[in-house]
Amino acid sequence: MYKINENYQKLPGSYLFSTIAKKVSAFAEANPQKEIIRLGIGDVTQPLAPAIIQAMHQAVDEMADAATFHGYAPDLGYEFLRTAIAEHDYKARGCDISADEIFVSDGAKSDSANIQEIFGQDNRIAVCDPVYPVYVDSNVMAGRTGTYNAETETWSNVIYMPCTMENGFVPEFPKEAPDIIYLCLPNNPTGTTITKQQLQEWVDYANKIGAVIIYDGAYEAYISEENVAHSIFECQGARTCAIELKSYSKNAGFTGVRLGYTVVPKDLKCQGASLNQMWARRHGTKFNGAPYIVQRAGEATYSPEGKAQLKEQVAYYMKNAAAIKNGLGAAGYTVFGGVNAPYIWLKTPGNMTSWEFFDYLLEQANVVGTPGSGFGPSGEGYFRLTAFGSYENTLAALERIRKL
Amino acid sequence: MYKINENYQKLPGSYLFSTIAKKVSAFAEANPQKEIIRLGIGDVTQPLAPAIIQAMHQAVDEMADAATFHGYAPDLGYEFLRTAIAEHDYKARGCDISADEIFVSDGAKSDSANIQEIFGQDNRIAVCDPVYPVYVDSNVMAGRTGTYNAETETWSNVIYMPCTMENGFVPEFPKEAPDIIYLCLPNNPTGTTITKQQLQEWVDYANKIGAVIIYDGAYEAYISEENVAHSIFECQGARTCAIELKSYSKNAGFTGVRLGYTVVPKDLKCQGASLNQMWARRHGTKFNGAPYIVQRAGEATYSPEGKAQLKEQVAYYMKNAAAIKNGLGAAGYTVFGGVNAPYIWLKTPGNMTSWEFFDYLLEQANVVGTPGSGFGPSGEGYFRLTAFGSYENTLAALERIRKL
Repeated sequence: MYKINENYQKLPGSYLFSTIAKKVSAFAEANPQKEIIRLGIGDVTQPLAPAIIQAMHQAVDEMADAATFHGYAPDLGYEFLRTAIAEHDYKARGCDISADEIFVSDGAKSDSANIQEIFGQDNRIAVCDPVYPVYVDSNVMAGRTGTYNAETETWSNVIYMPCTMENGFVPEFPKEAPDIIYLCLPNNPTGTTITKQQLQEWVDYANKIGAVIIYDGAYEAYISEENVAHSIFECQGARTCAIELKSYSKNAGFTGVRLGYTVVPKDLKCQGASLNQMWARRHGTKFNGAPYIVQRAGEATYSPEGKAQLKEQVAYYMKNAAAIKNGLGAAGYTVFGGVNAPYIWLKTPGNMTSWEFFDYLLEQANVVGTPGSGFGPSGEGYFRLTAFGSYENTLAALERIRKL
Repeated sequence: MYKINENYQKLPGSYLFSTIAKKVSAFAEANPQKEIIRLGIGDVTQPLAPAIIQAMHQAVDEMADAATFHGYAPDLGYEFLRTAIAEHDYKARGCDISADEIFVSDGAKSDSANIQEIFGQDNRIAVCDPVYPVYVDSNVMAGRTGTYNAETETWSNVIYMPCTMENGFVPEFPKEAPDIIYLCLPNNPTGTTITKQQLQEWVDYANKIGAVIIYDGAYEAYISEENVAHSIFECQGARTCAIELKSYSKNAGFTGVRLGYTVVPKDLKCQGASLNQMWARRHGTKFNGAPYIVQRAGEATYSPEGKAQLKEQVAYYMKNAAAIKNGLGAAGYTVFGGVNAPYIWLKTPGNMTSWEFFDYLLEQANVVGTPGSGFGPSGEGYFRLTAFGSYENTLAALERIRKL
């Protein structure tokens, strides 16, 4: 008789965003006349930029002709895309990353969930609290997190690094040494970040204790301050301790297009084993490449036209972020983030829990946000709003919230 | 200090098709004047059908307008595609499968590698020998296969079911009861298949011993004989013991488009745990949907025009299969397959090993095939050719092989 993976049974509830989607869908069904504004799930709303649309049409046409048809893609991704990434995302910033250290994928969510596979069972992970749920959940499924304490909503074998108002949302080195450290900067969900100098301290710490940093840079395009690193590889020594995950979802609106990449430097070695080679093996065995059309769309984000159009798109969303931050601030809310990231993190008013505020906002203002406690125990009492709505909807949502 | 997944170190050599790609690329570099014909890796060569191209252009245009833009897809795949699958691939064949038992993915390779994750560590897998390498390799990475014997090229904790000339390439029930049985029918690499009645016996066997069958139906579109099942769910009782993987790579030429789906029936339960729910959780946590554009392309394969165009495309490849089979047969080779599958499986001439014949064919005829031993020990002395070339190239390759 076959046996299931018992670790799945340990997972409390369902994936956060699935739960929200179900709640919103039930509310919409019960209240068909209400116009819901969604500032919850972090999905973009602006259409793809013209340069990207043009590249995709051209790639579709290539697929229509045997002479230009593209079948299976190379394991690591097309050379044209990996070269563009190495050039624009790394060399242009003075980072020493070559094309064969870049692995193109169907998005950073898959990579952030799958990356733990190349590590052994007996590693202890450290995460910021609150945190993007995928890092922890994927480790739960792999059996690396110990037992779940429903009261504290924590796992016995996970090191939590609280990020709250009190420490300015800057994670502190944990008391016990972790093996794998997940850092998402600029941060989802808090919308805050740390300086390049603070990141350098994390790199030094990881190298000192022999930990590896999984660095999620999905929101890099939203950095507006000078002293914030756009890549962990801007830090000295990161090549021996860091893996970087990147996404096109937020800088180019690819949430429904699906493209990302992971950088595993060749200097990242564990007792002689090359993590670059291990990830290559994983990629070659369990994945079959991102679609040709999508990789051409990714390439178009680096053309002069593509870059200019995406800069405008990011500015559009950051205008929303500023509007939310200033608007809620003026209405008496305590707000964070929104300067280097498209997320606003606010203290729930009164003594409402995160889910109470979620229900309150959905029912009274018909606005969907994300309850902070869904990201971890230290997220309790906080709430996330995204800047990814349309400007009109963002202002309308603000107006509704102010009137409450 | 972090630890790596030591199971990766156990993997002998690299992924089969990566090895072939490297060998061919080295030969091409050393012999730039030679025109290589590739009948190896199983990649298609015909362009996408017009109905699919049209659907993709339309979907790209939708992504260019905020009013019709599509961001994150629903976890399980878009309703329009899942409904089309349930209707055309199941209900039309009398199979009782509903849309919420269908999980759309980025292709059957990913699914066939990932599906083992929802099972516990202490399951024993059974595979046909020869076999598509991903089934075994993904279980090696998960630590389920025991130790590797380099001499016999087998894993201590894998049950091999030899499929050779001697048993007509029909796997027999193993002596030891397996927990998870991988069946790919019509078969890659042998190009052979079994009757619906024989498949029913496997379903009965699995239900009797409490095993689950992972049924890879990637080549279903190539079935030409009446008594062969197009889905395992044509068999009585399959809903309590089978998971089916399907691909659009071969029936619609999506090798570079990336789309597939997996069916996990709600009746598939292990001590009360629903495998359907477990796979939904896995999908929701570690995957973020296939691209909207690609799902629309998938939908187009079910339109009347799409169906007619793909029928022609399959017929085109099967004409190649017949040409190879008849041509090599006439030249004195012993050949199998090619009737219900786009693969020809041949005995290597003389006493050549599979890799010897690979090198011989590459060097003397500049034709690339796949060595049978790359698929498992019982594949030694066999060789796979695919029907996925152009008709002209297929005839040219045949002519070169005949002249050897």
